[in-house]
Amino acid sequence: MVIEMQALADYIHIMSKPTPKTRLFVDSDIGSGAIVSPTNDQQHYLTTVMRLGDGDAVALFNGRDGEWLSQVTMTGRRSCDLVVSAQTRVQTVGPDLWLLFAPVKKARLDFIAQKASEMGCSRIWPVRTDYTQVSRVNDDRMLANAVEAAEQTERLDVAEVMDYTLLPAAISALDDSRTLVFCDEAVAGERLHNAVDVLAAAGPISRAAILIGPEGGFSADERLLLQKHENCLKVSLGPRILRADTAAIAALTCFQSVCGDWTA
Amino acid sequence: MVIEMQALADYIHIMSKPTPKTRLFVDSDIGSGAIVSPTNDQQHYLTTVMRLGDGDAVALFNGRDGEWLSQVTMTGRRSCDLVVSAQTRVQTVGPDLWLLFAPVKKARLDFIAQKASEMGCSRIWPVRTDYTQVSRVNDDRMLANAVEAAEQTERLDVAEVMDYTLLPAAISALDDSRTLVFCDEAVAGERLHNAVDVLAAAGPISRAAILIGPEGGFSADERLLLQKHENCLKVSLGPRILRADTAAIAALTCFQSVCGDWTA
Repeated sequence: MVIEMQALADYIHIMSKPTPKTRLFVDSDIGSGAIVSPTNDQQHYLTTVMRLGDGDAVALFNGRDGEWLSQVTMTGRRSCDLVVSAQTRVQTVGPDLWLLFAPVKKARLDFIAQKASEMGCSRIWPVRTDYTQVSRVNDDRMLANAVEAAEQTERLDVAEVMDYTLLPAAISALDDSRTLVFCDEAVAGERLHNAVDVLAAAGPISRAAILIGPEGGFSADERLLLQKHENCLKVSLGPRILRADTAAIAALTCFQSVCGDWTA
Repeated sequence: MVIEMQALADYIHIMSKPTPKTRLFVDSDIGSGAIVSPTNDQQHYLTTVMRLGDGDAVALFNGRDGEWLSQVTMTGRRSCDLVVSAQTRVQTVGPDLWLLFAPVKKARLDFIAQKASEMGCSRIWPVRTDYTQVSRVNDDRMLANAVEAAEQTERLDVAEVMDYTLLPAAISALDDSRTLVFCDEAVAGERLHNAVDVLAAAGPISRAAILIGPEGGFSADERLLLQKHENCLKVSLGPRILRADTAAIAALTCFQSVCGDWTA
């Protein structure tokens, strides 16, 4: 009897959890009464994976119009439209925060795109450095990962995914007002360069680019180039050697918690 | 000709990178002149994967004796011993920092063990909460992931991996002097609870346990239990919903950068 009561209590707990919303990123404009046609992949996801049907709720966002509630209208056995009803959140603009990183092998690359998106990056930019081993990056796959993470993480926008670019070209695209947060393995573990302290001391930062290097670090030429940037902060992510994906999350955490939208 | 010069310069850059050390965690005592017998898996790794042979260098650590240099002595075609020569680093003690987390599906579980190890956790503890879906955790696999990450991240010790435990039992094993850093999705995005600020305001923390919940959050009973802990800090990891593995890295980053060994 005691056990049954506990089982019932557990059941009530589970029932009282908020139902997870299905969220979709779409290209089209969203407004009250609009009919949105999901892509074929999205229709498959809604009808076959999520098993939604007529009248089921789906949240929509497009990076411009905030978040809206919509209802499924089946147009075939496995196809549907979404009829938009009410706005649930107004559009907000996240931090102007880029992540530049030397790409790593495929699984970890997926991971970096997901995590950068979860951590609120506005732009994800794979850069080719002197010691980078990867010769090609699948931009579509990175974007798909960024979109999926945005849908799951309740973002209202999706990070822009840039083409794989040589480091010098990417750096020259940073104007001087954009703070370059250079995660430099050469100062790893140096207290003076502790990322949160350096960022806090720098005062408000409105536009930033975090740079994570490859396993072998940066070449001497690259170090010169980076230090020539008007507005470069060299930071340490602690005494241990972090993998590129861990370093990306750690650096984004430091930024968001000191200068970004964790403090908003 | 210009291209050839560039190719040569690149080659020199690559050659001048420090050769990555092969590092192994071993159980046995390590001291000058000691002969260490690697496990069968380690012998396979050294001789077949890394293709090392007589005289090649391997770094050893056991969590007690610091880091030592050793040389391979082949004892068969694919078997070897390691002869210890000089100490390269003295043993240090990292932060007394536990990670308690509700386990997630297998791939992400591997990932959490690796990342917790990279981030310098002293104890990794999967806990079963009311809304946790996972019924079994493979401790050996988690430990193997923690060991591998310790070898790669230049740690001098390996985090202790605990058995899968019910949350109330794990919480009652925390004495009151251990700060419970409760990553609470109910305060997500609240500036007052911003993790780095809360940790900085708490002053020096010598012993901590970070707690990351399951996707569905904590039950009302669990919330009561956690808040009863003498020394509980409720923290926010920003406004977005983070996956458990991302949340673990983010929380560990906040701790290490404010109270832990990034500031040492």
